[in-house]
Amino acid sequence: MEVVVLRLGHRPERDQRVTTHVGLLSRALGAKGMYLAGQDSGIVRSISRVVEQWGGDFFIEDKVKWRRCIEEWQKGGGKVVHLTMYGLPVRECEMAIRDAGKILVVVGAEKVPGEVYGLADWNIAVTNQPHSEIASLAVLLDRLFLGAELSADYPGAKIRIVPCGKGKQTESL
Amino acid sequence: MEVVVLRLGHRPERDQRVTTHVGLLSRALGAKGMYLAGQDSGIVRSISRVVEQWGGDFFIEDKVKWRRCIEEWQKGGGKVVHLTMYGLPVRECEMAIRDAGKILVVVGAEKVPGEVYGLADWNIAVTNQPHSEIASLAVLLDRLFLGAELSADYPGAKIRIVPCGKGKQTESL
Repeated sequence: MEVVVLRLGHRPERDQRVTTHVGLLSRALGAKGMYLAGQDSGIVRSISRVVEQWGGDFFIEDKVKWRRCIEEWQKGGGKVVHLTMYGLPVRECEMAIRDAGKILVVVGAEKVPGEVYGLADWNIAVTNQPHSEIASLAVLLDRLFLGAELSADYPGAKIRIVPCGKGKQTESL
Repeated sequence: MEVVVLRLGHRPERDQRVTTHVGLLSRALGAKGMYLAGQDSGIVRSISRVVEQWGGDFFIEDKVKWRRCIEEWQKGGGKVVHLTMYGLPVRECEMAIRDAGKILVVVGAEKVPGEVYGLADWNIAVTNQPHSEIASLAVLLDRLFLGAELSADYPGAKIRIVPCGKGKQTESL
């Protein structure tokens, strides 16, 4: 299964921290990369530094045109999932999404162009309550990968955490 | 099962959006309320407005002393889970946590006092990769409630979303 995230509506002056959370969790929960519709070299640098230090081959690309990104993904045989509080319950759709194999997950900031609802193969809600696109994406990824993402390997890492019950332990590789 | 969230290290000038995400997702994913170690009447107001509009009885309380909050929770028979990237894998601990029944989940901002690691009954990681406290909390809650939280009722709501495959549909109650 291949999942890539497309972050829409990023405003550099306001969304830097939230979009950084979206990028980091995408990497940590099994996505292959993130397209950023918008320009923000600061986020590209900070995510790239994490990859360099902590391993794996997660990619991040900014200045992406969202409509073209969605259409090319679909032309390439992939399906598009748009996360929205107005969508269908994730539990009804997650098996079908998993079966689709190649998924672009669209995650908006506050306002998402209406056209996205039409282009998406699924409009999915992780609860129909107001909450957080970071939380929705995390729950969706954990459900799609069935927890396997939580023990993934990150080849090329320079540092690794040694899980422990109390305190902090790391090792250099 | 009863889950309450304790948010540590909130800095009003910097963390307002992230802490708001923590509060909203806590409500949307089944927690009963959030204690905020710090003062921020703006967050209290905005979460309270969501509850008023969207229903349920989620509580939020700021100006909480974190050490006393943890100790009183434990005196009352509850257990404390601290989310940290240095902790034990969530998958190894989630059954035991669920069995404990009454859980305070401690979610830090950037720096968490070392003492918290010692006071917690479990120090738990949702992956040992750098990511997002919002994402970790969302995955933990979804795992503890086994998805039942996703179709919870919110009594007293004035507005409700009608889930749909395309577009946006709400109803006033």
